[in-house]
Amino acid sequence: MTARKWAFEDFAEGVEIDLGTKTVEAGEIVEFASEFDAQPFHLDEEAGKASILGGLSASGWHTCAMFMRMLCDAFLLNSTSQGAPGVDFVKWKKPVLAGDVLAGRLTVLSGRLSRTRPGIGFVTWRAELKNQKDELVFEFQNTCMFLTHEAAAA
Amino acid sequence: MTARKWAFEDFAEGVEIDLGTKTVEAGEIVEFASEFDAQPFHLDEEAGKASILGGLSASGWHTCAMFMRMLCDAFLLNSTSQGAPGVDFVKWKKPVLAGDVLAGRLTVLSGRLSRTRPGIGFVTWRAELKNQKDELVFEFQNTCMFLTHEAAAA
Repeated sequence: MTARKWAFEDFAEGVEIDLGTKTVEAGEIVEFASEFDAQPFHLDEEAGKASILGGLSASGWHTCAMFMRMLCDAFLLNSTSQGAPGVDFVKWKKPVLAGDVLAGRLTVLSGRLSRTRPGIGFVTWRAELKNQKDELVFEFQNTCMFLTHEAAAA
Repeated sequence: MTARKWAFEDFAEGVEIDLGTKTVEAGEIVEFASEFDAQPFHLDEEAGKASILGGLSASGWHTCAMFMRMLCDAFLLNSTSQGAPGVDFVKWKKPVLAGDVLAGRLTVLSGRLSRTRPGIGFVTWRAELKNQKDELVFEFQNTCMFLTHEAAAA
């Protein structure tokens, strides 16, 4: 017996999904930034304090990547996901600092079946991350593609 | 003598910047996906071929991160960048596959001085990545903050 996978039909308008929490480690911030976004405030505590970010802060792209990992662990790796065509918007509302604990939540806005690809549906959702002070640090919206249960079983 | 840094005034409307090229290695795709986006088509060549992506394909977030690195190397690490409040949109137009060679270009759409923060300006730009077949794989727009030359010299 295997657990039933999340499929298109499970993402009805208004469905809310808890994405759990993620503690942001200083070492992870520096590692990601060293490879992809080596601006001083993402590499060094003192440079971060001297900037408008106020401390060693994660690259906005690192926040996106950590969010994606939360999405994967919460349900996406146990789903019929077929990927996504893009991102509607990302808002980096406040700096994500070393030691922060991020909590995520996702809300389904709408879903529709593809007119051209049988068995595939598009799900539009919005998500947010808050820090341990209950401050909103990240807002996100995009559309993902999922197989229907019937198509996944075929 | 140090090289003059890119500052707000240098990003006039219509300025185009070559972001160079980036070869996408299979190992990098798997490494990024293992940490942040472990969907099968980002981890395994056969799973990628079986999916609508057609081969081992980079996570869309990895493409964003590779783009950011190209931006950093082209000019951002030699600029007065103060970070960015978010992303207007990302379009993952086609799969980015192992072995692809991405070429990037950025065009400045507009710039304006902050009304509330003296010495800081907002620059809105659009960027794209094309692969070795000249296919558009990635489109992106956002707004970055930069110090003016005068503020940077102060």
